[in-house]
Amino acid sequence: MPTDASAGALRVIPLGGLGEIGKNMMALEYGDDIVVVDAGVMFPEEDMFGVDLVIPNIAYLLENQHKVRAILITHGHEDHTGAVPFVLPELNVPVYAPKLAHGLIEVKLRDHRILSASELHAIEPGEEFTFGTFRCEFFHVCHSIPDATGIAIHTPAGLVIHTGDFKFDHTPVDEVPTDFARLAELGMEGVTLLLSDSTYAESEGYTPSEAVLDPNLERIIAEAPGRVMFATFASLIARIQQIANAAAKNGRKVAVIGRSMVNNVAMAQQMGYLRVPEGVIVPVESLSGMPPEQTVIIMTGAQGEPTSALSRIANDDHRDFSVERGDTIVLSASPIPGNEAVIMRTIDNLLRQGARVLHANNAQVHVHGHASREELKLMLRMIKPKYFVPIHGEYHHLVAHAGIAVSMGVAPERVFIMEDGDVLEMSGDWAEIVDQVPAGHVYVVGRRLWDPSNGVFKERQTLARDGVVVAAVAVDGATGRLSAPPTLTAHGFEAPDDHPEVMAAAVRRLEESLGHQQWPDEDLEEAVRQQAGRVLSGFLRDATGRRPVVLALVSLT
Amino acid sequence: MPTDASAGALRVIPLGGLGEIGKNMMALEYGDDIVVVDAGVMFPEEDMFGVDLVIPNIAYLLENQHKVRAILITHGHEDHTGAVPFVLPELNVPVYAPKLAHGLIEVKLRDHRILSASELHAIEPGEEFTFGTFRCEFFHVCHSIPDATGIAIHTPAGLVIHTGDFKFDHTPVDEVPTDFARLAELGMEGVTLLLSDSTYAESEGYTPSEAVLDPNLERIIAEAPGRVMFATFASLIARIQQIANAAAKNGRKVAVIGRSMVNNVAMAQQMGYLRVPEGVIVPVESLSGMPPEQTVIIMTGAQGEPTSALSRIANDDHRDFSVERGDTIVLSASPIPGNEAVIMRTIDNLLRQGARVLHANNAQVHVHGHASREELKLMLRMIKPKYFVPIHGEYHHLVAHAGIAVSMGVAPERVFIMEDGDVLEMSGDWAEIVDQVPAGHVYVVGRRLWDPSNGVFKERQTLARDGVVVAAVAVDGATGRLSAPPTLTAHGFEAPDDHPEVMAAAVRRLEESLGHQQWPDEDLEEAVRQQAGRVLSGFLRDATGRRPVVLALVSLT
Repeated sequence: MPTDASAGALRVIPLGGLGEIGKNMMALEYGDDIVVVDAGVMFPEEDMFGVDLVIPNIAYLLENQHKVRAILITHGHEDHTGAVPFVLPELNVPVYAPKLAHGLIEVKLRDHRILSASELHAIEPGEEFTFGTFRCEFFHVCHSIPDATGIAIHTPAGLVIHTGDFKFDHTPVDEVPTDFARLAELGMEGVTLLLSDSTYAESEGYTPSEAVLDPNLERIIAEAPGRVMFATFASLIARIQQIANAAAKNGRKVAVIGRSMVNNVAMAQQMGYLRVPEGVIVPVESLSGMPPEQTVIIMTGAQGEPTSALSRIANDDHRDFSVERGDTIVLSASPIPGNEAVIMRTIDNLLRQGARVLHANNAQVHVHGHASREELKLMLRMIKPKYFVPIHGEYHHLVAHAGIAVSMGVAPERVFIMEDGDVLEMSGDWAEIVDQVPAGHVYVVGRRLWDPSNGVFKERQTLARDGVVVAAVAVDGATGRLSAPPTLTAHGFEAPDDHPEVMAAAVRRLEESLGHQQWPDEDLEEAVRQQAGRVLSGFLRDATGRRPVVLALVSLT
Repeated sequence: MPTDASAGALRVIPLGGLGEIGKNMMALEYGDDIVVVDAGVMFPEEDMFGVDLVIPNIAYLLENQHKVRAILITHGHEDHTGAVPFVLPELNVPVYAPKLAHGLIEVKLRDHRILSASELHAIEPGEEFTFGTFRCEFFHVCHSIPDATGIAIHTPAGLVIHTGDFKFDHTPVDEVPTDFARLAELGMEGVTLLLSDSTYAESEGYTPSEAVLDPNLERIIAEAPGRVMFATFASLIARIQQIANAAAKNGRKVAVIGRSMVNNVAMAQQMGYLRVPEGVIVPVESLSGMPPEQTVIIMTGAQGEPTSALSRIANDDHRDFSVERGDTIVLSASPIPGNEAVIMRTIDNLLRQGARVLHANNAQVHVHGHASREELKLMLRMIKPKYFVPIHGEYHHLVAHAGIAVSMGVAPERVFIMEDGDVLEMSGDWAEIVDQVPAGHVYVVGRRLWDPSNGVFKERQTLARDGVVVAAVAVDGATGRLSAPPTLTAHGFEAPDDHPEVMAAAVRRLEESLGHQQWPDEDLEEAVRQQAGRVLSGFLRDATGRRPVVLALVSLT
């Protein structure tokens, strides 16, 4: 490694989402220029109490804000775009995105009231953009949303290819296949670094084309005795197109319910990404007059999201819809890891109400949008990169993808399994992880950003386990004597059979202990607080075997 | 249905575990006799805060304790035996179990110090037992634990077959296949009701034999450059046998770590269920002198259980073991629904430390113990039941299994998809769900039993979301005036940027409100408490947008 590396070297820095599904952000830095690829969100895990969203930590970008030239968005999914409204208020740089993603981001920025303050550009595949020393070109790829791209980035250290999320689908719904010709050309130019989607690097063979679903969807709709309700992702415009086509063939009308679904469908129609014959998509109100066997409804909720239309219907608390005799319900999505149990609960509740339910376990009603192992090999074969970094996926996916790269002839020492914050420095002929910068998670709580290391989250975990017991102790400031009996209350805590007795005994124990105590001359309040907390914790542990959070408050009267 | 049904009818009552994986308990009642099949536990879901175990609700059995003749255990897995130590102290009836399960239950009862007070019988398949009007015979089935059984129960309303958990494995590790001959004989006698395992009713084809793993395990061990560590279930004695065989063939020594694993292996060896050549299994201490390529270690943790040996090694906080260069780690289990995410995190942490990790996604290192669809058909074909109730599985599994039964010729009106607490009454020629009795969940917290509807769990959820803010208010009992400024404290709550200011402002707001209040003549304490709580909640909601639990405590001085 040259001694003066950082000046004459490309730095590749994943800032969020490596080792995870979702929440992608990758920075490329050379000299005084940084471009950022994607700015996604992740939904909180069950133990992230009170957290609404998880976004990448952009501390490194803020430290270097004078260098940041642009954020480039590969496609319109939440895990690539969702952090934009949280990033721009802190780091107002131009955002470049393909047209559909541009439309979806516009909606978000308007929601957050920062659209007019933001610089947002819609790009076309093939156009070139120069950001300082970087020359960037988006190229079309297939994925489970139209208008998805990868990005070719020409740098002084050589050509970098970022695949975005992709699969090779020769018969995609939008009829725009991955741009093999351009990929092959780029491969011929000589590629220094390939950053490639690893989400399905453990999946053998080829991912099926979206087209395999057409006959299945048509048959399901044709054979259904009543309504057919489809739950899928609001951004899965291609699937919505397929469902609308199948409905039209069967002479059924399609209604869309749920705010995000309605907005996305309207926008996709307006922008030409969803092409449905006049009169097939109808407002949901007009369904009420129609025979159920002439209708199809599309909604969100295939991941069991608790506020989605499908979950509300499953729990029988949707304002307008409930399961009716003859309903067929199709979950057209594959479970995001971690969501399996809640999805199955949703399915069970629909079945209990008498619906027929088709889902990944009992019908082919979904294909995912990511390349399987043979496609990943094809990408590596076309691009023939000198260096390889697997991106997008949990750590085991990255390891599997690294194994594929090595099996395709990339030298093991040129394959880097990176973690968020790792800094990979490279020139044309060497590469090394040289540093660690702040990266990873930031929590969105309401619309504020919280550091995950905030002790509050740990406190919430202990509160959740055994609840809280609080003592209020009023003490005469002059004498240190109790001015009133201690008051106790509990929340989320209970000594099962004998709760009132235990609490009364705890008050007596406190009175005894605090009444016979010699207090120090200074900081009486703190001394009483500590003593009361210690005595109460010990008493409850002995009496109940539980360890609730114990808080003591002291008033000096 | 005869008017006098319950006197001359068989009542079939699932008490826990229908619509779920695990926690099985089924009661059969006729006249004055009840027999119970299985008494399992389930591990708590993530939102069951502070809950250690989930067991069936036996309120119905307690109400009818004079009728309960016995608990029959089909096999030794936790989800069929784990509730026994919690049930017997309340309902001390004889327990009958096949030998290995008997041994495992003995260990549990000794742990709970109730062994000597309990009546525990080891049975042999083929023996007959009479419990009041019921005549019961256990028959051998294959499952992922040796000595698994189903039960044939002769009742005045006809013959009932309970399959237990089963698969048809023609080459099981313990060389004892399912007793086809006896099953066929029973089928010939005429079966009124079949209760059959539904866990894999969505899985096409046949479940592979355990024997398919032998060559895989041998090759993994032969090719491993260093230690091989296997994580599996402590009760999966057959897998432990296979690993020990493969290790012996490769001249390696096997050590077992973890209390439950060590105990089970010792007992299985003693009882003859685990047959390993002398000297292959060695104490863990003796590994330290051996070259890693001559060792195999077996441990728990394949489900990502947080206190298991594997999780500790993955988090690098195991007392004796950490990942070393050249380690191969094999997770030989399929994820229990809901555990997928934590298992993947465990795998990722092992990979990060440089281990090679083999698991269900990248190698065939496990086969499960339940019949797939074709085997379920074979069972239905042999038994030819008049009535059918799918058991063991989530609701969607039960629905899938019911579909199979109908496709095999059982009349749809004779197939009952039951829920916990449903009472199915039947004689030889009619059957109907006639009633609902208390059933479902009871939570074990420590060693006490809690009702899931206890408000404490709801309170813990709100505590977990936004934490708690507590106010202590000391008021002069005579005048109603504040005797001291209110004291505030927060736990698991924080107004991010300006926490001290917000809390100070909250105190001022309380002083203002409580200082200018006219109090009623009676119950001053309660009036102050309510007012303080209301004011503080409102202030915090306006100031921070969050809704913590607010507790106010009042001392009258």
